[in-house]
Amino acid sequence: MTVAYDGRNYAGWQRQRNATTVQSVIEDALRKIDSGPARIFASGRTDAGVHAMGQVVHLDLERDFDPATLLRALNAMLPPEIRIMKTATAESRFDARKHAVSKEYRYFIWNDEVLPPHLHALRTHLPGALDETRMQTAASCLVGRHDFASFTANVNRTTSDTTRLLSRLDVRKRGHELTVIAVGEGFLYKMVRSLAGFLIKVGKGAESPSSAREVLASRQRTARVPTAPPEGLYLWKVGYLP
Amino acid sequence: MTVAYDGRNYAGWQRQRNATTVQSVIEDALRKIDSGPARIFASGRTDAGVHAMGQVVHLDLERDFDPATLLRALNAMLPPEIRIMKTATAESRFDARKHAVSKEYRYFIWNDEVLPPHLHALRTHLPGALDETRMQTAASCLVGRHDFASFTANVNRTTSDTTRLLSRLDVRKRGHELTVIAVGEGFLYKMVRSLAGFLIKVGKGAESPSSAREVLASRQRTARVPTAPPEGLYLWKVGYLP
Repeated sequence: MTVAYDGRNYAGWQRQRNATTVQSVIEDALRKIDSGPARIFASGRTDAGVHAMGQVVHLDLERDFDPATLLRALNAMLPPEIRIMKTATAESRFDARKHAVSKEYRYFIWNDEVLPPHLHALRTHLPGALDETRMQTAASCLVGRHDFASFTANVNRTTSDTTRLLSRLDVRKRGHELTVIAVGEGFLYKMVRSLAGFLIKVGKGAESPSSAREVLASRQRTARVPTAPPEGLYLWKVGYLP
Repeated sequence: MTVAYDGRNYAGWQRQRNATTVQSVIEDALRKIDSGPARIFASGRTDAGVHAMGQVVHLDLERDFDPATLLRALNAMLPPEIRIMKTATAESRFDARKHAVSKEYRYFIWNDEVLPPHLHALRTHLPGALDETRMQTAASCLVGRHDFASFTANVNRTTSDTTRLLSRLDVRKRGHELTVIAVGEGFLYKMVRSLAGFLIKVGKGAESPSSAREVLASRQRTARVPTAPPEGLYLWKVGYLP
């Protein structure tokens, strides 16, 4: 299933005790329509307040639902902030996490004095001057297979290998909306928000575009790289081989 | 001041006892920053659940605020669902309602099986087939100065003159988004939602495009004209002479 959600009122994707998460709400809805284990397995987690347009999950069902009926039945049980956008029958071996070959994240910034009301909690609001050309120059320095230890909040060092292929990092501006597009095989914990946080500093003039290379080479997460707020981040698309 | 709001949680624009309205929230915020009467006067009301991108209000202040300071001070006091988008000093005779020469409303329909989560309460969701060419044909029949008694919910007949100049009524489709744009000197009570409601019936095939003329000529509000739901409606722009 392809799942979209407005993450503002959820404690992230993953099921937790004593907190409402996107996974738990979907699994609770699933339990009402199927007698099976009501477990869903996602391409990966998203943090509290982060949104998704194209999260992908796999699941096993007891009942013999056709995909269109499953979509309608689940959406009827879910709050409007969580929507099943697409459903399809997968091979029984399909694994939404293991078989993902790429992920696209988009980070949306509203760069104007006032954030319009309908974008509240859906955009990061930055009213000051932001130079997207400087940001794009810095972004280009970060594309490629690198050790991104400087751009992760891997505090517990649970991930020993911090090398990732970042295949695309682009900065777009249309009107007051600035978008950072990040595509890669996979991302480290809070990596996209760290990349966005650093690019924002470059855009504001607090870092030079070429300093991106220096920060990357240091392989040390320091205060030079802030974590941008969650409300601008969307898990946009997960790629699989055909 | 130009005011934008997400109307989903408000009982409309106008101040009421025992209900939270956009006007009352702005006046309460104003009271915190100015010792004057804290009253605002709008170009017109909007109903419960209706949104605005460009509502215009005038007000008198005790303190000598410059416009930029007023904008910042008020937005700091207001919830994110209500934003002051622009402020300007007006001549003392300026009246936001009396001096309005045109109004533009936009009615947004999401025409796809699933309404994406970030558009919840911001679009009217219509999953079935909707023919925008038929809708545009019907819309064109309604443009001009006509008696719009068939397209108002003027139940108490408080308005004796139901003739209005509708200068533009257009139907646009971009992807899954269908927009009805209505521009006129002024609109009757629930007139835009009635026009949208009828155009939707035409789009679904329940009325012919040419029946618009017949319904208009009847000057009788009947069940042939449903009132479209409020969540799709935006007061988009109010026009004044320069």
